[in-house]
Amino acid sequence: MKIGVLGTGNVGQIIGAALIEKGHEVMLGSRTATNEKATAWTKSNGPRASNGTFADAAAFGEVIFICLNGLGTVDALQSAGPNNFQNKVVIDLTNPLDFSKGMPPSLLPQYCNTWSMGEEVQQQLPAAHVVKALNTVTANLMVDANRVNDGNHNLFICGNDVDAKNKVKHVLAENFNWKPEMILDLGDIRYARMTEAIVPFWVAVMQAEKTPMFNYMIVT
Amino acid sequence: MKIGVLGTGNVGQIIGAALIEKGHEVMLGSRTATNEKATAWTKSNGPRASNGTFADAAAFGEVIFICLNGLGTVDALQSAGPNNFQNKVVIDLTNPLDFSKGMPPSLLPQYCNTWSMGEEVQQQLPAAHVVKALNTVTANLMVDANRVNDGNHNLFICGNDVDAKNKVKHVLAENFNWKPEMILDLGDIRYARMTEAIVPFWVAVMQAEKTPMFNYMIVT
Repeated sequence: MKIGVLGTGNVGQIIGAALIEKGHEVMLGSRTATNEKATAWTKSNGPRASNGTFADAAAFGEVIFICLNGLGTVDALQSAGPNNFQNKVVIDLTNPLDFSKGMPPSLLPQYCNTWSMGEEVQQQLPAAHVVKALNTVTANLMVDANRVNDGNHNLFICGNDVDAKNKVKHVLAENFNWKPEMILDLGDIRYARMTEAIVPFWVAVMQAEKTPMFNYMIVT
Repeated sequence: MKIGVLGTGNVGQIIGAALIEKGHEVMLGSRTATNEKATAWTKSNGPRASNGTFADAAAFGEVIFICLNGLGTVDALQSAGPNNFQNKVVIDLTNPLDFSKGMPPSLLPQYCNTWSMGEEVQQQLPAAHVVKALNTVTANLMVDANRVNDGNHNLFICGNDVDAKNKVKHVLAENFNWKPEMILDLGDIRYARMTEAIVPFWVAVMQAEKTPMFNYMIVT
């Protein structure tokens, strides 16, 4: 499959590399086509790897992963061109974390409580099927659920389109070892408020547990 | 032990009844000494149960549970008299949930992201040792952790005073079957922001799981 990944940070690079390992073609998108980190990533990930602008990567992908930081997301999507996302499944991993006041982080006030990054992405890309997913775990766990408790822990997804959510479940199971029965669909894209709101909590648990390599398992 | 419980809702009544069952004396506090729900609760809980005003219950308790709703908390604490909490361990269960916009709930904007109910309670009661606890599970699970997964799931607490947190761990273990090793101390009272922020998420999971009788177990 051809996959676009927007963002050249830790999350984008790890997601992209894992998808290439599974046989997909991945284009990493950034503000400029000559972004140094993206160029280095392309070199080290072989012939199925490429990089370009946000617009290049969005046009390239049949499925698009958004791995941006909260503050830059709207500008990046506008620069990518909303038309390039039309009718595509867009997996939004972005967290609107605000570290400007130090630790522990808060959320950017404009994406908090009654609005979220996930809803903003869906609003910016009205013709795309946005699914919020993977934003509640660390990058190395995103791409291999088996790294914690034999894959027995939960992922929380949401989005307006049921087919898109099913496709995302399939992509996560096939490529990243997420067991479909451990993926909990919380509802429409408004529920991104909830899954983004638990990320400062995640940071607190990481501090207490002294590792980012953990997740929550719902028990009844 | 003499315990004060502020609040006559579902949570206060269940907490109070469970503590009486364990042999404690419990006074339920409400706005008026003749509150109907509190009077009925006293009648049905035997000789160790009593009720009175917020001030009566705060003065009575060696340990005080705050089981109020977010909007009424500051007024209730002022009416209880901050002096009645001096040097006491105060367990704050309050969640600043806002259902006024329908489901899913948000948090009251004044207790959200960079401020919390837990911090507010500590600020209102500067001479008390406030510990945020139990606010992340349903009332019937608060009082018997064994009702889910043999007690193997996590409770998240925070507060400024280490001795007070240890006392709360002891109270929860002795009375409510919480295993000390499953109680995760996230840090000072600022971390109430995190444990309150996961409550709208809890509502979403409850909707998806179709039961409130669940919790999270951290797995690594």
